[in-house]
Amino acid sequence: MPVRSRFEKEMDEIALALTSSMDSDENIFIYDILVDYAHVLMLAKRGIISEKSAASIFRALKKIMEDGFDSLSKSYEDVHEAIEAKITEIAGEDGMWLHTGRSRNDEVATCLRMYARDRILQVLFTLLDLRSTLLRLAKKHMNDIMPGFTHLQYAQPTKLSHHILAYHDMITRDFERFLNVFERTNLSPLGSSAFSGTSFNIDREMTARLLGFNGIVENSLDGVSSRDFLIECVFACSSLMLSLSRICEELILWASEFDFIELPDEFSSSSSIMPQKKNPDTAELIRAKAGTLIGLLTSAMSIYKAMPFAYNRDFQEMNSLLYSAFEIAILSSRAMSEMIERARFKTDVMEKKAGKSFSIATEITNILTEKGIPFRVSHKIVGELAKNEIFSPKAEDVLRVARKFGFDVELSDYELENVSNCRLAVEKRKSVGGTSSENIERMIKSRVEALERDEENLAKLKAEIDSAIEELWREVEAYEGKMG
Amino acid sequence: MPVRSRFEKEMDEIALALTSSMDSDENIFIYDILVDYAHVLMLAKRGIISEKSAASIFRALKKIMEDGFDSLSKSYEDVHEAIEAKITEIAGEDGMWLHTGRSRNDEVATCLRMYARDRILQVLFTLLDLRSTLLRLAKKHMNDIMPGFTHLQYAQPTKLSHHILAYHDMITRDFERFLNVFERTNLSPLGSSAFSGTSFNIDREMTARLLGFNGIVENSLDGVSSRDFLIECVFACSSLMLSLSRICEELILWASEFDFIELPDEFSSSSSIMPQKKNPDTAELIRAKAGTLIGLLTSAMSIYKAMPFAYNRDFQEMNSLLYSAFEIAILSSRAMSEMIERARFKTDVMEKKAGKSFSIATEITNILTEKGIPFRVSHKIVGELAKNEIFSPKAEDVLRVARKFGFDVELSDYELENVSNCRLAVEKRKSVGGTSSENIERMIKSRVEALERDEENLAKLKAEIDSAIEELWREVEAYEGKMG
Amino acid sequence: MPVRSRFEKEMDEIALALTSSMDSDENIFIYDILVDYAHVLMLAKRGIISEKSAASIFRALKKIMEDGFDSLSKSYEDVHEAIEAKITEIAGEDGMWLHTGRSRNDEVATCLRMYARDRILQVLFTLLDLRSTLLRLAKKHMNDIMPGFTHLQYAQPTKLSHHILAYHDMITRDFERFLNVFERTNLSPLGSSAFSGTSFNIDREMTARLLGFNGIVENSLDGVSSRDFLIECVFACSSLMLSLSRICEELILWASEFDFIELPDEFSSSSSIMPQKKNPDTAELIRAKAGTLIGLLTSAMSIYKAMPFAYNRDFQEMNSLLYSAFEIAILSSRAMSEMIERARFKTDVMEKKAGKSFSIATEITNILTEKGIPFRVSHKIVGELAKNEIFSPKAEDVLRVARKFGFDVELSDYELENVSNCRLAVEKRKSVGGTSSENIERMIKSRVEALERDEENLAKLKAEIDSAIEELWREVEAYEGKMG
Amino acid sequence: MPVRSRFEKEMDEIALALTSSMDSDENIFIYDILVDYAHVLMLAKRGIISEKSAASIFRALKKIMEDGFDSLSKSYEDVHEAIEAKITEIAGEDGMWLHTGRSRNDEVATCLRMYARDRILQVLFTLLDLRSTLLRLAKKHMNDIMPGFTHLQYAQPTKLSHHILAYHDMITRDFERFLNVFERTNLSPLGSSAFSGTSFNIDREMTARLLGFNGIVENSLDGVSSRDFLIECVFACSSLMLSLSRICEELILWASEFDFIELPDEFSSSSSIMPQKKNPDTAELIRAKAGTLIGLLTSAMSIYKAMPFAYNRDFQEMNSLLYSAFEIAILSSRAMSEMIERARFKTDVMEKKAGKSFSIATEITNILTEKGIPFRVSHKIVGELAKNEIFSPKAEDVLRVARKFGFDVELSDYELENVSNCRLAVEKRKSVGGTSSENIERMIKSRVEALERDEENLAKLKAEIDSAIEELWREVEAYEGKMG
Repeated sequence: MPVRSRFEKEMDEIALALTSSMDSDENIFIYDILVDYAHVLMLAKRGIISEKSAASIFRALKKIMEDGFDSLSKSYEDVHEAIEAKITEIAGEDGMWLHTGRSRNDEVATCLRMYARDRILQVLFTLLDLRSTLLRLAKKHMNDIMPGFTHLQYAQPTKLSHHILAYHDMITRDFERFLNVFERTNLSPLGSSAFSGTSFNIDREMTARLLGFNGIVENSLDGVSSRDFLIECVFACSSLMLSLSRICEELILWASEFDFIELPDEFSSSSSIMPQKKNPDTAELIRAKAGTLIGLLTSAMSIYKAMPFAYNRDFQEMNSLLYSAFEIAILSSRAMSEMIERARFKTDVMEKKAGKSFSIATEITNILTEKGIPFRVSHKIVGELAKNEIFSPKAEDVLRVARKFGFDVELSDYELENVSNCRLAVEKRKSVGGTSSENIERMIKSRVEALERDEENLAKLKAEIDSAIEELWREVEAYEGKMG
Repeated sequence: MPVRSRFEKEMDEIALALTSSMDSDENIFIYDILVDYAHVLMLAKRGIISEKSAASIFRALKKIMEDGFDSLSKSYEDVHEAIEAKITEIAGEDGMWLHTGRSRNDEVATCLRMYARDRILQVLFTLLDLRSTLLRLAKKHMNDIMPGFTHLQYAQPTKLSHHILAYHDMITRDFERFLNVFERTNLSPLGSSAFSGTSFNIDREMTARLLGFNGIVENSLDGVSSRDFLIECVFACSSLMLSLSRICEELILWASEFDFIELPDEFSSSSSIMPQKKNPDTAELIRAKAGTLIGLLTSAMSIYKAMPFAYNRDFQEMNSLLYSAFEIAILSSRAMSEMIERARFKTDVMEKKAGKSFSIATEITNILTEKGIPFRVSHKIVGELAKNEIFSPKAEDVLRVARKFGFDVELSDYELENVSNCRLAVEKRKSVGGTSSENIERMIKSRVEALERDEENLAKLKAEIDSAIEELWREVEAYEGKMG
Repeated sequence: MPVRSRFEKEMDEIALALTSSMDSDENIFIYDILVDYAHVLMLAKRGIISEKSAASIFRALKKIMEDGFDSLSKSYEDVHEAIEAKITEIAGEDGMWLHTGRSRNDEVATCLRMYARDRILQVLFTLLDLRSTLLRLAKKHMNDIMPGFTHLQYAQPTKLSHHILAYHDMITRDFERFLNVFERTNLSPLGSSAFSGTSFNIDREMTARLLGFNGIVENSLDGVSSRDFLIECVFACSSLMLSLSRICEELILWASEFDFIELPDEFSSSSSIMPQKKNPDTAELIRAKAGTLIGLLTSAMSIYKAMPFAYNRDFQEMNSLLYSAFEIAILSSRAMSEMIERARFKTDVMEKKAGKSFSIATEITNILTEKGIPFRVSHKIVGELAKNEIFSPKAEDVLRVARKFGFDVELSDYELENVSNCRLAVEKRKSVGGTSSENIERMIKSRVEALERDEENLAKLKAEIDSAIEELWREVEAYEGKMG
Repeated sequence: MPVRSRFEKEMDEIALALTSSMDSDENIFIYDILVDYAHVLMLAKRGIISEKSAASIFRALKKIMEDGFDSLSKSYEDVHEAIEAKITEIAGEDGMWLHTGRSRNDEVATCLRMYARDRILQVLFTLLDLRSTLLRLAKKHMNDIMPGFTHLQYAQPTKLSHHILAYHDMITRDFERFLNVFERTNLSPLGSSAFSGTSFNIDREMTARLLGFNGIVENSLDGVSSRDFLIECVFACSSLMLSLSRICEELILWASEFDFIELPDEFSSSSSIMPQKKNPDTAELIRAKAGTLIGLLTSAMSIYKAMPFAYNRDFQEMNSLLYSAFEIAILSSRAMSEMIERARFKTDVMEKKAGKSFSIATEITNILTEKGIPFRVSHKIVGELAKNEIFSPKAEDVLRVARKFGFDVELSDYELENVSNCRLAVEKRKSVGGTSSENIERMIKSRVEALERDEENLAKLKAEIDSAIEELWREVEAYEGKMG
């Protein structure tokens, strides 16, 4: 291992098992190769290394990329060392120019940011799907009535579409958070070298552009020492998983005694001994993985706390947290999108239960208030009915209690039935964002439009990176062509 | 307690001790009063309650505000209930109209968002101070040489200004994160009512505007059920504390054996038995509080995971996490700003140690590479010198080893001394963001400009909220005037 | 402030706000006084300070104890400094002998261990109550049938007593964990001084004995530098809260759509706008506080990670985590014990639902297996019935499917009804620890006996500490008597 | 997949990727096979299945064990299902009897407990090594002087042996914690079946004995629903890693500017561009992995919080946390033991720095106190010297300041030099557990004896399990023999 030149002894076997990152470096294999291409191209263009050396390295990189990560020896500290060693094996002395003007510190930081930026885009595309699914469901169940809960107790009748739109808006904020993080992530630290820059005449803007970055992390010490972008990524994943866990919790409850949903077979398991069982395993595991993510974030932050500048090997331990976070977030969002799309909402059961447990009490309170009884008194009147278990009161019941509280108003059974009808009750809530049909329609419409805008913007972000990488390939090929 | 009308028995004493939030609600006392003002003003303008009732409530609120939080009875579930009870005590039946068209669910969510938004602004102003302090220090130490470390080992000579600029850029990203969070936080959920909106003809946009919000959380279920804004706030605080903990770690080390700094007496403690001790207690406690913040975030996320919609009492437990997070973040940032400003950097010691432990090895490697020896070979040559403990090599030493590796180049002692001079070495790193003077000057200049822009923007954000609240007061007063 | 003798300037106000522990030190106020008593008594007995000085200090301590924590000035770094200052204020020069042969480092460690040990005992007594309550409930509901769930899906009929016994056993392990922690906690670090012991001729065993410790933390560096006992305490509290959170989750579900329980009014809240609501707030907040505890533990561990020896001020930040952890654990356990005791289990509803959702499928599978059909085939046969929604199969239905799978057995409707009867089904599970009556009775009996043993042991532990403290008071009084 | 008999459709591919545990089940492969052996042996002995079926299953198990985990298809939900399918593939209808009287719920709980118990023993053996290494080092450096630090500031001179003994005692408490956890872990849940026991006439005590368990988890619901043993294991690992992180932090500091240690080459890395670098990578990664463990524990607790009984698929997500925790703890402890054994303590540097920064101030304070000046006054006197930077005071300097404070004592330069001599100072600290030679010798002696006792006990624990498993093999072979 070339970089150990100052030591007498090789790395101890246990120490290597503990310190090597080769078991998770496959995640950044392709990015390291891209970084090598861009760096070498820049070195050659700047005349820091010869065109011949550059061409040799390009050939070696091509071979390594084709052979794939598994062909690398696992006895190295990391993929960067492994690839450099392999290049030298293939390209001989030419390969020994590769590492000019850079360090593993800026190299790995660059790879991690490319990895993260690409995964952010992947999450964002997945979330577009999920948002689209949720909007379709909201549309489909536009007018379906269901019971609403607070504290898991029957509270007020509501609409399934309104409920699903709340899922949508929650997920959309996760979408926005990833967009925020993208901006701070897609910046190039390449050329920071060990931490203080380099005396070689490198061009950081060029490598940044070739790798599709939106700019550079300017201060070279900051470039290699900062992992707040990584922590932010893990946080955004955690936050998304919390959102998904809340939906899963409801799916699990609704597939249980509430009986509001039938989950698709393809996302359920049975029991090894209880043959009748249909278990919501996918939802349970997404919920559990939200817990995993909380821990991944905790790990990352605990490791990072009080880390002195510049690079410390501790940072390496954070990398696989990033990989796991994205893997879980992407897989879970996809599964959620598929699972909820194929689930069957039992709207008949929902409607039947919408008025359960005196859930129209608030409407009765409100009509009394409209008739001139102060709200807090109306609330007491209806509370008294509840205490006496008069859950389907007649007008006379209400008026009797009202009189007890010193209020004499008029109320007909017809009026009372009117507010007690769940379908009518939900329509009466015309306050902006409430359950009335106008509200629901307006919310769906504006969200569909926002989704379309986000789809366009995201496609553009993706295209910018893709075309940068294509340009890199073109330049490399042109270069190889020139060299014959 | 008015809201318990349906129960036979009062709350159990242990249960109340466990469930009441009165011990931390002082944090949102003033916000609850503002919310009451805005809500009642809107109710009166919409004709939902009488102008007389509104005026009575305003008078009661004024009294409560003047008496302060401590005058409220602590035997309530929360400050919302306590204030409503007090209003009714003062205003009689008029006060019983207060809660028309809203719920504690949207009320507390609104208070929390106002609290959070104001604390975000406070953090942002504090961070402007800290950034400004750091830029002043960078300017002051523009040309001071110091050793740079990786793995806490002497790595390469660098500049104190370059190091401090890395602090600055790290803190500036924290600043940006808080700005992102501000946008998602400063939205009004008021009028969401229990979760499904209300049949009263309320005006959500009006209350939002009066309270200085930038818009509303539209979907009413989302409005009362979402606490991702709270978690984001705690995360932004945690992330900031991690940044501060890194600076503190360095201050602690530098005030120890490294001997790079003398911390101000006012931020140090001594020992109860060792009279000579000067301990960096403030830095230690900021570092420790970063750990506290990691836990606050963990608590918030663990509580929030798998919470079904809409409101659950679990949410209440998250509130004091928010308060603690902001309190710690604000206090720590202020202390950091003061402490680092008044610290004395021992630039003489730094410079003396800059070349320690063969830290110019990289420069020798680079000059050999410039002379045509492939980088990886140059690295081995210098590694061999290190292994043989030749830490101040003469040209002949270098050339002898180079020849051993098959490379015969020219190198004079003069050239070698030239690269071995720390002052010259740092100037050679002209790659963008490196340690050369042009780099440092450009970085300081552009950051000072960015700071000024941020100061203006922040002042504007603040002014918008302030003028909204002033408008609220004006409207209330005009209203009171009208009522005589 | 006496200990700052080497400084020119007083502590900065922000720094003091950040670093003073006075806002939470009330928790160890009484312990610090006890430590002072024991330390001074020992110093006098050893002739290190004069009897007169000791007597003066005793008088001052008595006064301070009577005046209480609130009478101390809050402008000190901590309660230790505040008390010493107050003693000197009262006792003059005699008070200046107090700190001989010790340090705040061993002093605070001793106070924390006394605090923790007393709180552990408090938790243990509370858990005895809870275990006792659960055993009473198990006895009361010995034969009540209920549905059992896995994945929150109807699984098999079971018994309420069996379910409650599982709660009991889970809580009993928490009890054991606290006992384990007690042993490592109740050891005295007093006399470790700053970290290396002292040249004064002190007697560490004597102060340990006087303060009711079970021995000493021998190595003096270990004595002041270790907080694993604190972390263990927080873990034991977290672990207990997780157990309670699981019970709470079930209470919340059971009080919801499952309808298995009516929670006591005294542990429930209502809604500010929905007068019919009865919300399980106490259970929700205990559940939430389990999340808080996870975070407290995370904070403690994050702070403690990588702390160099000996004392660092970071340790102070861990103290209030300990206080919060115990306060929450004790309050929550008490509330749980009361709440579950007064809850009404709706055993009629439970029994009615016990056989829901084909939950006797496993029993049918088992009888087929007993008749010679391999278990996995029997499972498939019944799975086929489930797929075809034959949830109350006749013998003929079962036999037809069995034949399809190539098995021809005999099965009468009588036999089938027999295993399908929930009451009979639960009795058939005679495997040790299963739901049969013999199992339930044996489990209750042995647990009641274990409870009695634990009650005795705990009383003994408590008595040992109490009598040590009484002895301390006696010695102090005797001493004061002697001095006149 | 046999257990899905009730479904129309196969598991969705994404759902399987999300829910299958096959990627980590290799950890319990061998335990699942042992469980199968013991379970089938018991079934046959009890006459629940035929001897022929048992023999067939034994043959299949042997084949599966020989082929290894990798030969199993990865398309199953878990290793239990995969092995059962494979057995049926090999043994035909006989294999279909395997799952009689049990469930995957008790099966996986049993496997996890066997895995955990074996890993606990592995950790314990590793910690015996580490303790032994530390005691050897303490002995070797019995009389080596070093500076002691608090707040990372020079505090008092101490001894290296005393410091290393503090490491030892800290690690020994971790050892004890694992022993506590072992007792609650090594209990068999096998036979709990789904959660309510079984109607088959199984013998839980027999399988427990055959698998080397120390007893059973009696209540069957508790048996399958409890994962507190798992969380305890992860906590014990975390706690150990915190201890190791503290040692690592010191090694990193000591190998840095403090210059107290030379770490072995085999546990160090160099830099890819700075050829002189010798970085403490192993220590850094152990420190970082302590952060990882904090997160693993957080994940486990967050997942487990509020889990209703009985089994939920969420539990599965906790398994790999357990595997990672043990893997890291074992590897890190081993590395620590090797690394510290081979490190070179630079005792000359330590001794030279022992008296730095006026670190004998406390000794001067103490001698003044012994001469009759109250301690707090003595402290002020020496504090005044420190403030005036008189760090090597003559007797006259001290006396002058003492007089200023109103105290006139006698003090010769000889006396002063005597206490200022670091070697003499450390010997004066004869308080139990202090730095004097008697203390050190006694501590080493008693710890060596305790180590020997622990070695014996641990060997016994191990032997009990080993002989149980051997007995299982013997019974199986005898059985196969009988069957021909």
